[in-house]
Amino acid sequence: MRKIEPEILAQKIKEGDRFALSRAITLAESNRLDDLNLAHQVISLLPTSKTSKRIAITGIPGVGKSTFIESLGKYIVQQGEKVAILAIDPSSSLSKGSILGDKTRMEDLSREENAYIRPSASNGSLGGITSRTYEAILLCEAAGFENILIETVGVGQSETLVNEISDLFLFLQLPGSGDDLQGIKRGIMEMADLIFVNKSDSFQEKLVKDAKLDIVRSLQFLPTKASQWKRKSIIGSGLIGKGVPELWELVQDYFTFINENDYYRSNRENQQLKQAERYTIDLINQHYLKALKAHPIELNKHISAFEMAKDWLNNHSVEMTIK
Amino acid sequence: MRKIEPEILAQKIKEGDRFALSRAITLAESNRLDDLNLAHQVISLLPTSKTSKRIAITGIPGVGKSTFIESLGKYIVQQGEKVAILAIDPSSSLSKGSILGDKTRMEDLSREENAYIRPSASNGSLGGITSRTYEAILLCEAAGFENILIETVGVGQSETLVNEISDLFLFLQLPGSGDDLQGIKRGIMEMADLIFVNKSDSFQEKLVKDAKLDIVRSLQFLPTKASQWKRKSIIGSGLIGKGVPELWELVQDYFTFINENDYYRSNRENQQLKQAERYTIDLINQHYLKALKAHPIELNKHISAFEMAKDWLNNHSVEMTIK
Repeated sequence: MRKIEPEILAQKIKEGDRFALSRAITLAESNRLDDLNLAHQVISLLPTSKTSKRIAITGIPGVGKSTFIESLGKYIVQQGEKVAILAIDPSSSLSKGSILGDKTRMEDLSREENAYIRPSASNGSLGGITSRTYEAILLCEAAGFENILIETVGVGQSETLVNEISDLFLFLQLPGSGDDLQGIKRGIMEMADLIFVNKSDSFQEKLVKDAKLDIVRSLQFLPTKASQWKRKSIIGSGLIGKGVPELWELVQDYFTFINENDYYRSNRENQQLKQAERYTIDLINQHYLKALKAHPIELNKHISAFEMAKDWLNNHSVEMTIK
Repeated sequence: MRKIEPEILAQKIKEGDRFALSRAITLAESNRLDDLNLAHQVISLLPTSKTSKRIAITGIPGVGKSTFIESLGKYIVQQGEKVAILAIDPSSSLSKGSILGDKTRMEDLSREENAYIRPSASNGSLGGITSRTYEAILLCEAAGFENILIETVGVGQSETLVNEISDLFLFLQLPGSGDDLQGIKRGIMEMADLIFVNKSDSFQEKLVKDAKLDIVRSLQFLPTKASQWKRKSIIGSGLIGKGVPELWELVQDYFTFINENDYYRSNRENQQLKQAERYTIDLINQHYLKALKAHPIELNKHISAFEMAKDWLNNHSVEMTIK
């Protein structure tokens, strides 16, 4: 890619240039420190939204995530608002390529002027774990997309990660699976602010109602959220759009609630600090990976790998200067 | 746990005390640096096997991994040899508990004197990614278990990890799924040395043969392995033990081959270096996580998380002394 001035890129993003937005996100996702630095220069030149809504959406495969997200996205656009759809993907390089292919299915929505869909949000790694989706969010917001839907891909890890960069956690469920809160599911349910029981049109009415009752019952036993918000559930169908307006109403209630008790602001500040910590570790790792390349560990057959690591560290003082 | 002298623990492990072996593995899996240090003192007092066989076994859920591994394990014991069965699990804390519950199903094998099954091999994290399965392997070998079967749990990440701590990579397949080598599967197939087409008893003969032909054809297009070994496939069934003796014969062929061309030794040395590098990064991370706790990053609303990380690093010189 040709080098570009951060000022020009920032200006174009402010003007709503989608190509510029995509390019900045690509820079933020890069494995090269130069690119990441450039992306952050752009970010620092852009306004930060204090009113945007960052919504994490998750659910097991088969729950109808894509259909639901397209339905919700369309509804948001119909309300005259702008929406960006991103995905968080903590998967290894091995599985790259197979992920998010189905994002192309959101054809209707992708034709909308007020919708921005980022089909692949691969996470760069400076030898790191830090999700670059955080930067993608900031860039989308600067481009005027005040509603950010962040889809999780994968199980376990991605939910925790997305929870750390969003304001609201929405969990999609299927009827007939709400009674036993164990393991992974319990962990996700604890993070949830809203639960949408999807595909109500495909199940018998009684089953759907039972599912809702089960969820309401289960929710009682979960610890209160830090935001003090009481988890709520709703029945609907992404496919036929049922329950989507009501859900969006609950989303507004939630944001009013956390704005009034100041959780919105304090949570975002905590998230920014957490993200800074992750970057600190990533930068250190990158630094030491370089040092290890320049001064490789030497094999010592008489001691364990762990002892070799400690010896290397005690014999190398790695100077840290981060540009 | 009561403190124990590393010399005593090492002696007991050499004498084949299974309780001592389990205790040492638990120490190696601990999140406490003290425990890990103790585990490595024990390891340093124990002999290192230069003849053991470390065999990674993987396959998609439903391929019949547990049944196959129990069948192979029994066969190894019947040959008068000792076998240890471990599992590598890179999953997040969220999903802990649901994993490896089915290891208790290997009831028959677990009653054998010459088999050691470690039901849970959770990876400690010093803020890290390093698999402690490596230490479990060393400890099992010191206890006289010369055949180590390492089962992978999870998709993508764990295969790469297990490939970095084993000599041989065995991939289990189902008939009727061998034709399209894409994405994850291609990546795993590239790592494979042997492919076992499992559940041949449940499928029609023609389908099974077709599957084998498909695999043979696919294998031609994969790059040669660093060991120069030519990947081989075999049909069988873990459930009825079919193909297991032939597979074990191929395993012997493989080890003869890599011993003759010295890949066995060079690969192990590379793996030890790689493990030392991972530990170096883990120790650094742990060190900096402590420093971040003692001197937290301060919120600066005017700059991005990335800039905050760089500022913190430039204003803190963290002294590294590793005991």
